[in-house]
Amino acid sequence: MAEELKREVQGLDGKGSFTNGLLPGPGFSFTIHCRLRNVPGMLGLLATTIGDARGDLREIKMLEVGPGWIERQLTVNAADSDHVKFIIVRVASIDGVEILESLDRTFELHLGGKISLVSKSSLRTKDDLSMAYTPGVARVSKAIAEKPELVRTFTIKRNCVAVVSDGSAILGLGNLGPEAALPVMEGKAMLFKEFGGVDAFPICLSTQDPDEIVETVERIAPAFGGINLEDISAPRCFEIEERLIEALDIPVFHDDQHGTAVVVLAALYNALEIVGKKISDIKIVIAGAGAAGVACAKMLDGCGVPNLIVIDRSGVIHRGRDGLNGSGKQWCAEHTNPEQIRGSLSAAIAGADVFLGVSSPGILKREDIEQMEKDSIVFPLSNPDPEIRPEEIEGVAAVVATGRSDYPNQINNVLCFPGLFRGLLDSGARRITHEMKLAAARALADIIPSKNLSPDFIVPSVFDPGVAPAVASAVSKTARTAQEH
Amino acid sequence: MAEELKREVQGLDGKGSFTNGLLPGPGFSFTIHCRLRNVPGMLGLLATTIGDARGDLREIKMLEVGPGWIERQLTVNAADSDHVKFIIVRVASIDGVEILESLDRTFELHLGGKISLVSKSSLRTKDDLSMAYTPGVARVSKAIAEKPELVRTFTIKRNCVAVVSDGSAILGLGNLGPEAALPVMEGKAMLFKEFGGVDAFPICLSTQDPDEIVETVERIAPAFGGINLEDISAPRCFEIEERLIEALDIPVFHDDQHGTAVVVLAALYNALEIVGKKISDIKIVIAGAGAAGVACAKMLDGCGVPNLIVIDRSGVIHRGRDGLNGSGKQWCAEHTNPEQIRGSLSAAIAGADVFLGVSSPGILKREDIEQMEKDSIVFPLSNPDPEIRPEEIEGVAAVVATGRSDYPNQINNVLCFPGLFRGLLDSGARRITHEMKLAAARALADIIPSKNLSPDFIVPSVFDPGVAPAVASAVSKTARTAQEH
Repeated sequence: MAEELKREVQGLDGKGSFTNGLLPGPGFSFTIHCRLRNVPGMLGLLATTIGDARGDLREIKMLEVGPGWIERQLTVNAADSDHVKFIIVRVASIDGVEILESLDRTFELHLGGKISLVSKSSLRTKDDLSMAYTPGVARVSKAIAEKPELVRTFTIKRNCVAVVSDGSAILGLGNLGPEAALPVMEGKAMLFKEFGGVDAFPICLSTQDPDEIVETVERIAPAFGGINLEDISAPRCFEIEERLIEALDIPVFHDDQHGTAVVVLAALYNALEIVGKKISDIKIVIAGAGAAGVACAKMLDGCGVPNLIVIDRSGVIHRGRDGLNGSGKQWCAEHTNPEQIRGSLSAAIAGADVFLGVSSPGILKREDIEQMEKDSIVFPLSNPDPEIRPEEIEGVAAVVATGRSDYPNQINNVLCFPGLFRGLLDSGARRITHEMKLAAARALADIIPSKNLSPDFIVPSVFDPGVAPAVASAVSKTARTAQEH
Repeated sequence: MAEELKREVQGLDGKGSFTNGLLPGPGFSFTIHCRLRNVPGMLGLLATTIGDARGDLREIKMLEVGPGWIERQLTVNAADSDHVKFIIVRVASIDGVEILESLDRTFELHLGGKISLVSKSSLRTKDDLSMAYTPGVARVSKAIAEKPELVRTFTIKRNCVAVVSDGSAILGLGNLGPEAALPVMEGKAMLFKEFGGVDAFPICLSTQDPDEIVETVERIAPAFGGINLEDISAPRCFEIEERLIEALDIPVFHDDQHGTAVVVLAALYNALEIVGKKISDIKIVIAGAGAAGVACAKMLDGCGVPNLIVIDRSGVIHRGRDGLNGSGKQWCAEHTNPEQIRGSLSAAIAGADVFLGVSSPGILKREDIEQMEKDSIVFPLSNPDPEIRPEEIEGVAAVVATGRSDYPNQINNVLCFPGLFRGLLDSGARRITHEMKLAAARALADIIPSKNLSPDFIVPSVFDPGVAPAVASAVSKTARTAQEH
């Protein structure tokens, strides 16, 4: 194998080193199972070789020792697939090292899928079968047929959410179809369970027609207590979500839209507290008018931001522009940009208090940020490559947040959706309201006590165990208050 | 509570005893949490009272002891809901007994649903997130987009089956709709996991239109490696299954049809061995031309049974009959009844070697069975009440099997579907063939060695751990042989 790789990586870099500007990370983590000649200094040589190849050596395990040799398993992070191969070739060329196997840890973890179904009670005896299945289950079915609301008491509907995608906008990868969407939806289901205790199941659709998507989700809705739409491209996502909300008596939530909007609002609450500005006084410029951009604009408009400007590839969105396809951009034209300005991002951003980017990498320069109001707040969320890198605007912006885990203040939807759905399911809410989303954002912001707020700490960690319960409680309280009225 | 129940059960039976002819069973199992005066003989009095009320006392637990009292929890099986109430009232009327709570064990077991989703790996660190979700998952998505067959390697599709129902024919209860179907489909998912290691998820559809069902299942198919249709009424079930088989590249199986047919054939193989007859020599009468009846007829016809007669409520099915709706009965008219006889069940059964009932309770008399050939084989599978009770034909039929767990020889679909789908998923088969069903039936029959066969032992227990592996292995071997040719 090593010989084959050697040929493949020849010419990656003439000087025999590997530099593509990317940093090693767990996204390209692999293990090497190798047999080393058992002489002093061998492990040091191995570690040095990996370090010289810019690999990030994480773990070293000892597997077996024999006469004159020792088998070890190394875990190494690389920057991309070529880098993985480069490191393996370097290791294989050490005299006294034989590579027995190398495995890509991400693919290994995906083998056979990432989620599984389990029974909540055992089926070991005829009595077990008689209660969980026939004949006992017939009584439960009859009870539900007579009193339909019992379906929320005696079935999975109580705790179950469909994660629905048509594969049209998978992560930043584009339209790869429903099969390619499946690993992402499984990952989402893992997050639902781990952080919210919600049972979520992937529904990957082999159609991208809005009518057919709406119909299909309506027809499979009986077993679910909620619908999470995911990675459906704009502007279809707006129509699909609106129609499903109308048609169903369970909550429907397009996470790319509202999950982002809720977490952005929470971060903004805390950033504004740090710089001492009010949401009712500020100017916000949003770059990007896709699912996330439009949802953030609607959310911020609903919070009373007086001057909101949305920009897409063709410049500032205003009422006079042609070709405002679908409901999203049309809405922006009608509800934002009070002075109906026109022009480019650089022009619009002058005097803004907040920049929110949900668009493309590198569209801003340090000079653009310098034109903003004093104590500017900059959220370049394009992922993995932001609209502007935080290090480029050090000393200019007062608060910066990105979508990445390797900078402070990661805006990550997982801060919202598990707790949000936990609260919806607990309260039996049939719809998600603006008030619930506001309550979720407020609860999320309040996880960090004011005294602990700092420019580098405006959103809690995704691993903070207080996040989901706080969001869930705020949402279910808001739902119950509404139900009483 | 006891007072309320007392009023409710007054008049159930004038003589103060309870006899409705049914036997107590786990389908009506309940627990009583009660406080007893702590004097000698109290427990005996309690047990005697429950026995006198014809309750089947299963377990007695001690919960707590206090000054002069003791709290116990009793588990009791009753015959039906009225019987449960009757027993509770009787217990409550004992001097020195106070009932604190009584719970229906079947409903208790169903609280919150019977299945749950779990992650197959942990999500505790940023590295975990980076591999199972973004950014790592993007590489898996891209790999699947480039090479679509990888979806069976790196996602749940490899091991996941949709259990699809429209709620139109739930157990023997009729058309109760998709919500009432959900507890049954969850139970089915439990059986899939327990016996076949298959991850199955309930899809309960809010439509009963065949076109819409076919469309919907087609659209959600990408995440699944197989489709198990369940409790869909005839004749719609035939068309829906056929169209889905045509449309999809994953196996589609209507369990009510083929699961029954496979287990019936296995039982028939062994019964014929006992009586020393050959399948190519016999006359079989099938009562019932619904999903199960038609599928059994097709299966037996495919096995070369020379004289097969199918009967429905209107009598023997023959070519001259009007109103043979849909594909099922039409098929029977064209392919069975070689002599084109007409008339009633009693007339048709004369001289038959085998009677197979998948129809309604009590339609046969002992005299009907007496008219059959010598060494007759009788499978009255109507459940829970068979076409004729085994005790009525003792000494007449040579071999009897029913659908019930309280007689010998239970014909239960769970003997087939978990192993069948295990074999299909393991071999990556795209379709279920007649040969695979034959192989499954043969493997199931062969679980019992010839020397152990007896009229009371022609099918293995559903808890026999060898069943699913044997069926799976036979099916996947047949699939692989077909793939090679």
